[in-house]
Amino acid sequence: MKKYFCEIKIMLKRGILDVQGKTVENSLHSMEFQNITNLRIGKFVELNVEAESYEEAKAIVDSACSKLIANPIIEDYHISITE
Amino acid sequence: MKKYFCEIKIMLKRGILDVQGKTVENSLHSMEFQNITNLRIGKFVELNVEAESYEEAKAIVDSACSKLIANPIIEDYHISITE
Repeated sequence: MKKYFCEIKIMLKRGILDVQGKTVENSLHSMEFQNITNLRIGKFVELNVEAESYEEAKAIVDSACSKLIANPIIEDYHISITE
Repeated sequence: MKKYFCEIKIMLKRGILDVQGKTVENSLHSMEFQNITNLRIGKFVELNVEAESYEEAKAIVDSACSKLIANPIIEDYHISITE
């Protein structure tokens, strides 16, 4: 079994209103940051996974994402794995 | 003025208990994912910023992070900027 390090980026799907991001963007505009736009906030997950191969590691993490870590109805996720 | 795309990864500092991450990890262990460990959850922010140069863009985003987007007392953030 090899140990893999995995990073998962989870963002709301395009078209779904990101209320948290909009609120932060509005707050920035009321400070000195008028030139920041299109701010969106998502989640970032780091984890270690033990698997026989890169492919198995990817399959395990993908399954964990779709079952618990992300909400595939409203969120897109992108997995990157390194050894 | 050029438009830059910026990605910010915000994680709790090492040593600070990540309650949300621990909870998700425990839930995964009670499912079929016993081989996932060291799960930590942070935030991921995407934004556009207008600036004269890469250096100015980086300075603006760094300032926005330390003043509002992240909490530098308990969080580390990493900024990556592309044109």
